[in-house]
Amino acid sequence: MSDDVTAYVHELGRTARAAARDLNRRDPGLKDRALLATADALEAEAAAVLEANAEDLERASDEDLDPALVDRLELSEGRVATMADGLRQVAGLPDPVGAIDGLATRPSGIQVGRMRVPLGVIGIIYESRPNVTADAAALCLKSGNAAILRGGREALATNRAISRIMRRVLEETGLPPGVVSVVDTPDRAAVGALLGMPEHVDVIIPRGGKGLIERVAAESRIPVIKHLEGNCHTYVDGGADLGKAAEVAFNAKTQRLGTCNTMETLLVDTTVAGDFLPGLGRRLRDAGIELRGCEGTRELVPEAEAATEADWDTEYLGPTLAVRVVDGFEAALEHIAAHGSGHTDVICTEHYSRARRFLREVDSASVMVNASSRVADGYEYGLGAEIGISTDKLHARGPVGLEGLTTQKFVVLGDGQVRS
Amino acid sequence: MSDDVTAYVHELGRTARAAARDLNRRDPGLKDRALLATADALEAEAAAVLEANAEDLERASDEDLDPALVDRLELSEGRVATMADGLRQVAGLPDPVGAIDGLATRPSGIQVGRMRVPLGVIGIIYESRPNVTADAAALCLKSGNAAILRGGREALATNRAISRIMRRVLEETGLPPGVVSVVDTPDRAAVGALLGMPEHVDVIIPRGGKGLIERVAAESRIPVIKHLEGNCHTYVDGGADLGKAAEVAFNAKTQRLGTCNTMETLLVDTTVAGDFLPGLGRRLRDAGIELRGCEGTRELVPEAEAATEADWDTEYLGPTLAVRVVDGFEAALEHIAAHGSGHTDVICTEHYSRARRFLREVDSASVMVNASSRVADGYEYGLGAEIGISTDKLHARGPVGLEGLTTQKFVVLGDGQVRS
Repeated sequence: MSDDVTAYVHELGRTARAAARDLNRRDPGLKDRALLATADALEAEAAAVLEANAEDLERASDEDLDPALVDRLELSEGRVATMADGLRQVAGLPDPVGAIDGLATRPSGIQVGRMRVPLGVIGIIYESRPNVTADAAALCLKSGNAAILRGGREALATNRAISRIMRRVLEETGLPPGVVSVVDTPDRAAVGALLGMPEHVDVIIPRGGKGLIERVAAESRIPVIKHLEGNCHTYVDGGADLGKAAEVAFNAKTQRLGTCNTMETLLVDTTVAGDFLPGLGRRLRDAGIELRGCEGTRELVPEAEAATEADWDTEYLGPTLAVRVVDGFEAALEHIAAHGSGHTDVICTEHYSRARRFLREVDSASVMVNASSRVADGYEYGLGAEIGISTDKLHARGPVGLEGLTTQKFVVLGDGQVRS
Repeated sequence: MSDDVTAYVHELGRTARAAARDLNRRDPGLKDRALLATADALEAEAAAVLEANAEDLERASDEDLDPALVDRLELSEGRVATMADGLRQVAGLPDPVGAIDGLATRPSGIQVGRMRVPLGVIGIIYESRPNVTADAAALCLKSGNAAILRGGREALATNRAISRIMRRVLEETGLPPGVVSVVDTPDRAAVGALLGMPEHVDVIIPRGGKGLIERVAAESRIPVIKHLEGNCHTYVDGGADLGKAAEVAFNAKTQRLGTCNTMETLLVDTTVAGDFLPGLGRRLRDAGIELRGCEGTRELVPEAEAATEADWDTEYLGPTLAVRVVDGFEAALEHIAAHGSGHTDVICTEHYSRARRFLREVDSASVMVNASSRVADGYEYGLGAEIGISTDKLHARGPVGLEGLTTQKFVVLGDGQVRS
C-alpha cells in the first residue's frame, strides 16, 4: 500500500516536471488567461465546490475535529468569491519570468546577464484551509512553476473539486493540466514520498503550524522555504516620539493576536519607561492583553506578572506580551540578538544614528523604524501577493512573492568567444 | 575524544557568530585594510608559510599520498605571491553589504526596500589546496561573514600558518580575529560537528570532488551551496556558422579537460553533421580526444568508438567526448533535458528564434549562444571573484561571487504607520 502511494506520488512528480517544462514553451499570456478563466469557473461552479466542502465538513463532524480547524475548512459562496478574486489579482501582477537583469558587455565581447526563470516544480504542504489550494496554485502557475499540492486530509474532497476545475480550465486554455495537481490520497506516506524525490521537485513550501514545518524541514531531502517562528520585538528608544511609539506598539500587539508578525516582546529604554509604560500598559490591559514584565516594568505597571527567562523566548500567538525595561540602545540590540527569531523587529525613535544602526545591525528578515511589525506582509510591501513569509536566510527572506518562486540563470550572448 | 571535538567545533561556531556580529558594527573600510595588510604579511612572512607547508609535504611523503594531491598541496614563493594578489583583488571589489535595492514608498506611506546583508557564518569544507584558505576567508570577510575553514588533513600545518597571519592582522586592524578560523584538528568528527550546528553556521560551501560534496550534502543540517556535476553540452544547430561553431566546440573541450565547464557531449544537427563532424573530429583526435559517437557520428567519423547510453550521462573530466547527431532543434532540447546536469549548455547558431528559445527553455545555470562553455566563470562574467559554481537552483545559481555570500533583508522606514 505504502509502495503504491510512493509510486503514485512519483508519477505525479514526473508529470509535474514534464508539465512545467511544457508550460514554459507556451505563450506566457496563456497563464493569465487560465487564471481569469479559473476565477470565472470557480464562481460559476461554486455549488460543486460547496458540495464537496459539505462532504469534508460532514466527515469532520463525524471525527469530532477541533472547531478552529472546522472553521478554517468551511467554505461559503463568499469565500469562493474571495478565492476567485485572489486569482484575478494574481493574473494582474507582472510576469516575473524572462526578465533579464544587468546584461552587460564584458571585455571579451560576450554579453552576460541574469534571466529570471521558474524554479520548476514546487511542493506545497499545508493544513486545512482550502483557499491555499487556489492561492498557491495560482502563484506557482503565474511564476511558471508546476505545483504539487498536499493539503490536509480533512479538506481532500474540497481540494479535489478546486483542482478539478483548475485542471479543466488549463486544458481548455491549451496549457498542460499537470502544472496543478493535488495529492489525492489521505495516506500519510504521501508526504514522505513527496519530500524524498529531489529529481522531481525543486522546492518544498510548508504552510501551517510550527510542528508541521519542523517535521517537513527535518525530513525533506529537497530545499525548503519555511517560516519557523516570529518572536518579534518593538524597542522604544530613548529618542522615541512616545505618542507615535504607543500607537505602533499597541497596533503591533493587538491588531491581530495569532499572526507571526505580532509583537511578542516590548523593550523600553529606561529613560522613557516612566513616561511610556504606565499609559500603554493600561491600554493593553484594557484590550485584554496580559503583561509579563521584568522588575523595572513591574515597578511602573504593578499589575504585570513577573516574567521568567522563558518569556523572552516565547512566541505567545495570543493575548500575552513580555515587557522589559532595558538600559539603552546596546542592551536592546543584545536582547534582540539573544532572543529574537530573526522575523521582524522594530525600533521607535527619532534619533537618526540609532535608527541607522538598528537597520544595519539587527539581523532579521524585516527591520523597521517607526512602523508596526504587523506591516511585515507581502501586500503591504508591494509584492502583490505572498506565498508565505520566510525566516530562512538563503534564497528568500521575509515575505515571499512571485520572485521567491523563481531563480536567475546566467545568459551569455557571444559571437564565437572562447577561453584562452 | 569525539565529544571533545564536538565541543571544540561548537566553541569555534559560537566565537564565529559573535565575531560576525561584531564585524558588522565596525567601519566597513577596515575589511579592505585588513585584506591588504594580510596580503603584505603573507609575502613578508612567506618563509613561515613555506616551512609549515614543508611539514605537510613531509608527512604527505611519509604517507605516500597521491602525487596529484601533493602537487595541489605544494606551495612556493610564487604561489604565496599569487595568494596575496588574490587578497588584493578582493580588497578592490565593491563592498556588497548595505546596498539598498528598490526603496519605494507604499500607499501607506512606509518606504520599503531590500538591504544586502551578510549571511553570517559560512563553513567551508575543502580538500588539499591551501590557497582556498586565503581565498575563501577573503571573500567571506569582504562580504561581512565569518568563515570556519575545514581544509584537508594533509594541509593542516599550512592552513594553520595562513590563518595565524590573517588572524593577527585582523586583530592589528581592529577587527575580531574570530571571523577567520581554521578547524585545527585532523579528527574527521569535526566535519560532522560543523554540519550539525545550524545555530552557529548559516551555510556550508563544500569545494572538492563529487564524493566530498555528496557526503556533505547528505549529512548537513545546514543549507549547502554546492556544485555537483558539469555534464555540459554544445549543440551545433542547423543554422550555425560552422567555422565559429568549430572554434567554440574545440575550445569547450580542449582548453582544459578536468574542469566542470568543459564540454562533455557535442550534439550536431543532422543537416550540418556531414560538413561539420569530419573536420572537427580530426582536430579533436589530433588534440588527443577520444570520441564516442552514435551511429550517425560513426558514419562520418569512423574512428569514433560506439557510444552507449551511459556516455550521454557521463562527466568524463578527461580526454573523452560523447558525440551525437540529432534530428533538429527539438531533439537537441530533449537530449539536454534528459541528460544534462543543469550546469552550462551552449547553442551555436545564427538563427534568431532558435537562439531565443534555447536561452529561455534550457534549464541550466548558464545558457549560451555562440560561446565556449569554458567562459562560465566568475571572472569572465565580471563577478570579480568566485567562491565556486553552484548547480543548485535556490539562492545562488552558476558562478557565485560576493553577492552569493549575502542575503537581502527588508527595511521599512515609517512614521508611525500601523496596520488597519
